Amino acid sequence: MSLEALSFDFATLRAAYADGLDPVAVVDEVHARLEAAGDPGIFIALAGRGKARAAAAALGDPAGRPLWGIPFAVKDNIDVAGMPTTAGCPDYAYLAAETAPAVARLQEAGAILIGKTNLDQFATGLVGVRTPYPVPRNAFDPAIVPGGSSSGSAVSVARGIVSFALGTDTAGSGRVPAGLNNVVGLKPTLGAVSTRGVVPACRTLDCVSVFALAVADAYRVLEVCAGYDPADPYSRPVGIRPLGPVAPKLRIGIPDPAGLVFGGDRLSEAAFRASLGDVAGLGAENVEVDFSGFRKVAQLLYGGPWVAERYQAIRTFLDQNGESVIPVTRDIIQSARSMQAADVFAGFYRLAELRRAVEPIWSRIDMLAVPTYPRPRSVADLAADPIRPNSELGTYTNFVNLLDLAALAVPGRFRADGFPSGVTLIAPAGSDGLLAGFGERLHEAAGLTLGATGHALPEAPDRTPQAQAGETELAVVG
Amino acid sequence: MSLEALSFDFATLRAAYADGLDPVAVVDEVHARLEAAGDPGIFIALAGRGKARAAAAALGDPAGRPLWGIPFAVKDNIDVAGMPTTAGCPDYAYLAAETAPAVARLQEAGAILIGKTNLDQFATGLVGVRTPYPVPRNAFDPAIVPGGSSSGSAVSVARGIVSFALGTDTAGSGRVPAGLNNVVGLKPTLGAVSTRGVVPACRTLDCVSVFALAVADAYRVLEVCAGYDPADPYSRPVGIRPLGPVAPKLRIGIPDPAGLVFGGDRLSEAAFRASLGDVAGLGAENVEVDFSGFRKVAQLLYGGPWVAERYQAIRTFLDQNGESVIPVTRDIIQSARSMQAADVFAGFYRLAELRRAVEPIWSRIDMLAVPTYPRPRSVADLAADPIRPNSELGTYTNFVNLLDLAALAVPGRFRADGFPSGVTLIAPAGSDGLLAGFGERLHEAAGLTLGATGHALPEAPDRTPQAQAGETELAVVG
Repeated sequence: MSLEALSFDFATLRAAYADGLDPVAVVDEVHARLEAAGDPGIFIALAGRGKARAAAAALGDPAGRPLWGIPFAVKDNIDVAGMPTTAGCPDYAYLAAETAPAVARLQEAGAILIGKTNLDQFATGLVGVRTPYPVPRNAFDPAIVPGGSSSGSAVSVARGIVSFALGTDTAGSGRVPAGLNNVVGLKPTLGAVSTRGVVPACRTLDCVSVFALAVADAYRVLEVCAGYDPADPYSRPVGIRPLGPVAPKLRIGIPDPAGLVFGGDRLSEAAFRASLGDVAGLGAENVEVDFSGFRKVAQLLYGGPWVAERYQAIRTFLDQNGESVIPVTRDIIQSARSMQAADVFAGFYRLAELRRAVEPIWSRIDMLAVPTYPRPRSVADLAADPIRPNSELGTYTNFVNLLDLAALAVPGRFRADGFPSGVTLIAPAGSDGLLAGFGERLHEAAGLTLGATGHALPEAPDRTPQAQAGETELAVVG
Repeated sequence: MSLEALSFDFATLRAAYADGLDPVAVVDEVHARLEAAGDPGIFIALAGRGKARAAAAALGDPAGRPLWGIPFAVKDNIDVAGMPTTAGCPDYAYLAAETAPAVARLQEAGAILIGKTNLDQFATGLVGVRTPYPVPRNAFDPAIVPGGSSSGSAVSVARGIVSFALGTDTAGSGRVPAGLNNVVGLKPTLGAVSTRGVVPACRTLDCVSVFALAVADAYRVLEVCAGYDPADPYSRPVGIRPLGPVAPKLRIGIPDPAGLVFGGDRLSEAAFRASLGDVAGLGAENVEVDFSGFRKVAQLLYGGPWVAERYQAIRTFLDQNGESVIPVTRDIIQSARSMQAADVFAGFYRLAELRRAVEPIWSRIDMLAVPTYPRPRSVADLAADPIRPNSELGTYTNFVNLLDLAALAVPGRFRADGFPSGVTLIAPAGSDGLLAGFGERLHEAAGLTLGATGHALPEAPDRTPQAQAGETELAVVG
């Protein structure tokens, strides 16, 4: 197979390496694909072809390096030593002295950094158009927003330029752009991956996320990235277990009719219902759940005190350089100036009450399955109204981090017009492995090609334990 | 033994009940003692002698009612149906429609409610003099403050009027008055006891606390009070195990010389050192620890965003009825009006960093042992300066709830001038049983009489498991 025709999913790339492919050639191919994409909005800065080639040439022995030769990108609100971190705001940029631990772990595992990707400024937005740089084009339809805030990361993976990319996720920045570009978006349990070296949006809610072509690839990256970091006060010891077999009969919560909204878009609705058919086809039980509590939590994220947390993150800069910030972003964040300290506690109490109210749902289901977003929104929609379409995109994402949940955005059945849709699986903190196990099968069931590459999804390895069917059943009964 | 000479500790009272004592007579004796105390500041309202007698008469079978016939008091920021809750502010008072679950559980277990006790208004203060009602007199020296905010609860127990009393504790309100009146003050793990029906001070940090004459009594009350309450968003499932044997060689952290401050009071220092001798005498190892991190956390409670949480608790009332609030309390709480929402997050980050900084200490020790307060302060001191002596009293208490720790204030060796001192044991959330187990032995080692009653501490039952010494040792080695 020619290198140009090679899928960059991990399984395919690893097999090619096993056959003698040179990682330096892969670096060259990455740059060729980037040039061919003709989209100056994806990357804000490249590590440099020379540097990436040198890194590839110096890789050495693959043994014990699970990401050996895998090219990746990093959202430009995460530090890489020697490169500027812009957070999508050139006047805010600083030269990073240290590489964020999440990135350093990937490099130690043999992954090759290609560059830093574009984003909604200060990771505030779910659209990808809130950037002073060229807007990355949606990998399927340039009229549709790429999604954000991790726009460049999602598009770089969807277009097959890199094998995976790091994003961040506070409100859905690691999921919405995955759903809009037919790639996997893994938003881990809060604290599983160190956020040291990440420009905060809401520091108590931020996490590093992963975009990849396949679920197993994203999960492999998480396994490498994750680890308790005593120097990050919000790091937690979260066990990330290897992917195992999926329980035979999972209970999957689906929003009730009142909670299942698509902004009137029948194509998106039909695509989601087709994905629900896949869920049922996998032997899972679809359980309708009252979604109103989750929606109320979602509304808190921008209607409550956490806007003040975004303000706190860039307070000095914003107070002194307001004109450097995109007007819509500035207006959102500055609104926190009129918020009193006591209001924050009122918001916390409200969240605590809502969290308690939705808690019983988790005893009835193993995970939620929701659309990743109600419907795709166009660049023109956002030009006409920069706020409401953005809020709509967060309908199924905004509540997740506030409730300390883990989530996985998986490509869902395509819409009838050929645009992708997405399903997001959600479950309590620590359930990353559970979500990935089922997500992998759901992705497989949809029978989709990877991102916008046209490549087929490689078959996942058999993850069932090596036992007779009878024995397994016995164990379940026992 | 005559009823007047009967100690109201649980063991003695139970033995008397077993010998045929009538609980109605105990109610009468409670009221006789209250009258004899001649202190109109202890109670804000009595349940009423008739009602208490009726409750005593209606007790029925003691079986399965661990607090059968035990008289108790409740701080007047906790609801009792049919009685006003004042929180120490007459204009704020409301008639409670429901009894707080913490109180209801006690009554179901057979305890007899005597009345509602005085407090520093809105539970803001550690002195007991911030009340529009008469100030409860310290049980040992009327020139010294009774301590607060649970002033009346501590004094009512110290004077032997009731067997135990509920307080609340946010900054030390359940510990400082215990230490100033030679009684036990148990501040449970946050969330162990429902705070439903409690007027909040800082809702995220508040807990219901217990004052009693002996550690086992306080712990028994906790066992009855504790329980997950789904209707309280801050309730948590905390395991409160029965008191067991104490580990043979506990490591007890003692503040290093820089952290061990007594405001220059040599009598208090000498008393604490004598108590440390008791700690060592019990076979525990005294481990010096850097106390600076804890002090920094303590300063956050009133120097950080949690003042705004106090404001949020009474915001509408304070905004409309500022003149109804004691000036010093009003000034403290109103200062939050100028605090921005973003400041709250800055305070949270600071706390998260400090929490992480002190975390390694807990791997070196099983619990901290600190003075309950640096030195007793006089009513005159507080009249001259209502703020700083109050802050000083919180030196060893303010950090505890912010760090999600459990604490137990145990009477310590008396000072040379005959005034009590106190030792507070502190350990991570969930360690209530560990603290009580060691605290019981420490109280016993001090050889003190109970509260200001002159009664001897009854001998604690043998809590060692029924095994040979050799077997126990083997189990430890294994």
